[in-house]
Amino acid sequence: MSKSCIFCSIIAGEENGAQIYRDPNFLVIMDKYPINPGHTLVMPIKHYENLLQMPSAAVGRLYALVPRVAKAVVSALKADGFNVGQNNGIAANQIVPHVHVHVVPRFKDDSPDGKWPARRVTPQEELAKLAHKIKHEITLTSK
Amino acid sequence: MSKSCIFCSIIAGEENGAQIYRDPNFLVIMDKYPINPGHTLVMPIKHYENLLQMPSAAVGRLYALVPRVAKAVVSALKADGFNVGQNNGIAANQIVPHVHVHVVPRFKDDSPDGKWPARRVTPQEELAKLAHKIKHEITLTSK
Repeated sequence: MSKSCIFCSIIAGEENGAQIYRDPNFLVIMDKYPINPGHTLVMPIKHYENLLQMPSAAVGRLYALVPRVAKAVVSALKADGFNVGQNNGIAANQIVPHVHVHVVPRFKDDSPDGKWPARRVTPQEELAKLAHKIKHEITLTSK
Repeated sequence: MSKSCIFCSIIAGEENGAQIYRDPNFLVIMDKYPINPGHTLVMPIKHYENLLQMPSAAVGRLYALVPRVAKAVVSALKADGFNVGQNNGIAANQIVPHVHVHVVPRFKDDSPDGKWPARRVTPQEELAKLAHKIKHEITLTSK
């Protein structure tokens, strides 16, 4: 755990996070500044700054969780597609230096100019509602 | 294997691809239209259209290969960071409907406008040289 890391603070329960899933190794929360509604983050509980610091087997376990999350996000948001992304280093637009995988639901014509839709600050209440909806789909799809 | 899939054709040896790594389950090649030099694709040999068609365990094994590839790409290109990305569906800008993970080396100031650097068509010869350089780094880092 890193004391100055916002994700470690959420993991420790010191900061609010709209939680979808947690097990001893991984946490899934809503992104506070979503590219689209339903933009979700999948991360290891253990603090690794970037993918190269993380053992390959742990990277594999992290990403094995992603299709399960993505299926729930797509189903909950009725999305037409989704991007899976993970940034390493300031040059790659990594904002929080704690490994996290973005799952971004995409919709037909959500980007008429071909760029990423703009991120929007989203109230905690709205994030909590979306988290609840996606959590419900994860439960259903894992049966 | 899908007959109309360009990646399946590369896998079958019917189309050219600048190959970095291959094992019975996975193939690593250079992207023909790189966002930056060294832009690499990691894919399963088996044809899956998107991540939701692929068993979670196979997704985990695919991504367990990514840090090893990324380390070699960063080292060969002396990159400042890298993005790992994977698109699912036309709405998410997926061009080839065969699962592939983009590993994109990034450089300080390669995107002064905050957008992705423009993709450029790259001669096969140049791709082959880069593949050779990255392959060498994979060999070194896997010792």
